[in-house]
Amino acid sequence: MIPVPAGVGKNIKNAVEYNAMKIVIPGFSFNGISGGIKKYGKKDIGLLYSEVPAIAAGVFTRNWVKAAPVLLTHRRIKKGYIQAVLVNSGCANACTGKKGMEDAKRLSAETARILKISPDLIAVSSTGVIGEFLPVNKMSTQLPVLCKDLAEEKVEKFAQAIMTTDTVKKIAVRKKMIGGEKIIIGGIAKGAGMINPSLATMLVFIVTNAAVLPRTLQSLLDEGIMRSLNRITIDGDTSTNDMVLLLANGRAGNQPFSKKSAEVTGLKTMLFEVLEELAQKIVNDGEGVTKVIEIKVKKATSHKEAETIARSIAYSPLVKTAFYGEEVNWGRIIAAAGKTIFPISFEKVDLFMGKIPLVKNGVNVAPQNEKRAQEKIKKKNITITLVLNQGRQDASIVTTDLSPEYVTINAGYKS
Amino acid sequence: MIPVPAGVGKNIKNAVEYNAMKIVIPGFSFNGISGGIKKYGKKDIGLLYSEVPAIAAGVFTRNWVKAAPVLLTHRRIKKGYIQAVLVNSGCANACTGKKGMEDAKRLSAETARILKISPDLIAVSSTGVIGEFLPVNKMSTQLPVLCKDLAEEKVEKFAQAIMTTDTVKKIAVRKKMIGGEKIIIGGIAKGAGMINPSLATMLVFIVTNAAVLPRTLQSLLDEGIMRSLNRITIDGDTSTNDMVLLLANGRAGNQPFSKKSAEVTGLKTMLFEVLEELAQKIVNDGEGVTKVIEIKVKKATSHKEAETIARSIAYSPLVKTAFYGEEVNWGRIIAAAGKTIFPISFEKVDLFMGKIPLVKNGVNVAPQNEKRAQEKIKKKNITITLVLNQGRQDASIVTTDLSPEYVTINAGYKS
Repeated sequence: MIPVPAGVGKNIKNAVEYNAMKIVIPGFSFNGISGGIKKYGKKDIGLLYSEVPAIAAGVFTRNWVKAAPVLLTHRRIKKGYIQAVLVNSGCANACTGKKGMEDAKRLSAETARILKISPDLIAVSSTGVIGEFLPVNKMSTQLPVLCKDLAEEKVEKFAQAIMTTDTVKKIAVRKKMIGGEKIIIGGIAKGAGMINPSLATMLVFIVTNAAVLPRTLQSLLDEGIMRSLNRITIDGDTSTNDMVLLLANGRAGNQPFSKKSAEVTGLKTMLFEVLEELAQKIVNDGEGVTKVIEIKVKKATSHKEAETIARSIAYSPLVKTAFYGEEVNWGRIIAAAGKTIFPISFEKVDLFMGKIPLVKNGVNVAPQNEKRAQEKIKKKNITITLVLNQGRQDASIVTTDLSPEYVTINAGYKS
Repeated sequence: MIPVPAGVGKNIKNAVEYNAMKIVIPGFSFNGISGGIKKYGKKDIGLLYSEVPAIAAGVFTRNWVKAAPVLLTHRRIKKGYIQAVLVNSGCANACTGKKGMEDAKRLSAETARILKISPDLIAVSSTGVIGEFLPVNKMSTQLPVLCKDLAEEKVEKFAQAIMTTDTVKKIAVRKKMIGGEKIIIGGIAKGAGMINPSLATMLVFIVTNAAVLPRTLQSLLDEGIMRSLNRITIDGDTSTNDMVLLLANGRAGNQPFSKKSAEVTGLKTMLFEVLEELAQKIVNDGEGVTKVIEIKVKKATSHKEAETIARSIAYSPLVKTAFYGEEVNWGRIIAAAGKTIFPISFEKVDLFMGKIPLVKNGVNVAPQNEKRAQEKIKKKNITITLVLNQGRQDASIVTTDLSPEYVTINAGYKS
């Protein structure tokens, strides 16, 4: 059983405690083994396989420098179907030029041959060191075992194989009866950890037995990511390898969900809950994280303004270190809010920690609430609400504190 | 004598080792005393005074939330003349509303009365805790002493009074014969340190005995700041209180320098050197800093592109922690370069540390230079050059590493 982190579960009515022995997503099987990329025989190659080609949706890193697997999978997913996802950790296969692309193609071609499917149906994904080549020969020898031992209940092995500095496996599952069919959706994530000298890559793979029209699948994924994974930040860096894939194999036998079908809201809720749970698991497992802070910016003149200001606060090293130090330091929050291109008027501003007012109409009211605020800031999960009172748009971002441990981990001190 | 930090002095031919006993800027006097804002009787009020109203130029924080002294001084400097600058540390007088503005006015009015000049000729400046009021009554009782004991040689006392977490006083002086007159220019800075719960405020005050036309003075300051103070970053945060003032009292008796006069280049050089030296001193004294890294981005399609990419690298916590850990981790630099809105093509990129190539035309050449690179990264001052090979524009930013000590200092652990 995966422990559900603090702060998760508020609006998760259909949460299923993941248990590998009980929950399977019909038609999907998994495996994770050691392919010789990482040291000490750690798991580093994972395979996710669908009995039939699945309708596929994907979202990829917006970094201009894209790893070979990102480029290849992005190209293949355009055809609409994916049947298997080959993932490795320990090497990003990024900044590796033509050879990197040939390596990705060769590994997927060999996997395709063993699975007896078209290479075009294979998605590839990598995370780890940038600028180094995959040990393709070594990996190739392991591919037959990887494919042979696929099993419905091996989700955890797959989750383990894609981990880098993650300290916990990140799996989320929901099930629900929709229109008479039992729909199950499961997701596996890694991130946002990094170990020298790689990056904070976020990989997320979601599978469901539902039948969904291709465009509906992509738009559900886009909307779900906007509300979940795109709202978390640990250090503001964007990986060359980020990838989120959603595969729907239709095994539930339902009439394919379309944007207009009434039942689609049921699937949407499940998907958004899985994404939100994985996002929370990622941020709670952030490197050196001792606190998870939601920054809500309200009553801005535009959503863009609200989001930009929320991100400015969320990225500020001064804000993040103050939270680590458990200092009620609202001046840093206001200063970070004021440094974007969007004007704010401090005289109009209200600021809260949880429900405790720190600033009202630009007047410091923190001193009279000091005791309550001091108690609040000692919690792991904290909400900051900045009300600009200059419009009607809201946005929120979930961030973490910045600890000396984050620096130590990322300075490359290997444990 | 102020030790000149490593990395300074390359192109500083006229550098004068500052010595309070020898160097004075004719017509300017200084003082710094304890006004009871800080604990333990530390100096916290400084006064800079010109015998005559000086032509004044100023540059102020771009944060939308501006401290009362910033607003007041910005308004006063528009009239063109400033005769005295009253500065305090320990309290930012920011986010203090009407009372904060009244406090700033009252302190400057009292100073004006003692100095027998118009309050409009007084600039005020503050750095320290946000959201708290100045102890005006306490400060008022010290103003007569502050004014009475002004002296030409008390530059160091002034420099000390404006310090917060700075570990060294920051003073730079140049002198030069220009057109038969002995021109002297001196600058005093604080930053970019902060102590709980205040901000990384940067204050810079520069004085010269030269006569300069007002518009020329402002444009020299603007250009100088673009090339120096605006190119350094420690944590990417912008204070509510940043202020740079340049006062020219004309005591040298020269024909006022205008943009068109041939002699202006002499003054310009001196001013830029003073600004550059102060910028270097600030960045070298950054909190928890063990390395100072210049990020050069070359051959971009526009200056904006070059600067945005340089800043993206300079702000990246992953890049900064890698330098702290002395890891030659070029993948993080490339990933940070690729995450802006400006496209880059990794295939075209060259990357150097000092003169050591790490990437050539998108090919990793770091392994063959590993030994030299490992030696280089152990130095305190490092230059990274990223050649995009997609245009003709260059930009550079000076940044620092990110150490556990930075986090500890800013988490509010008081020593």
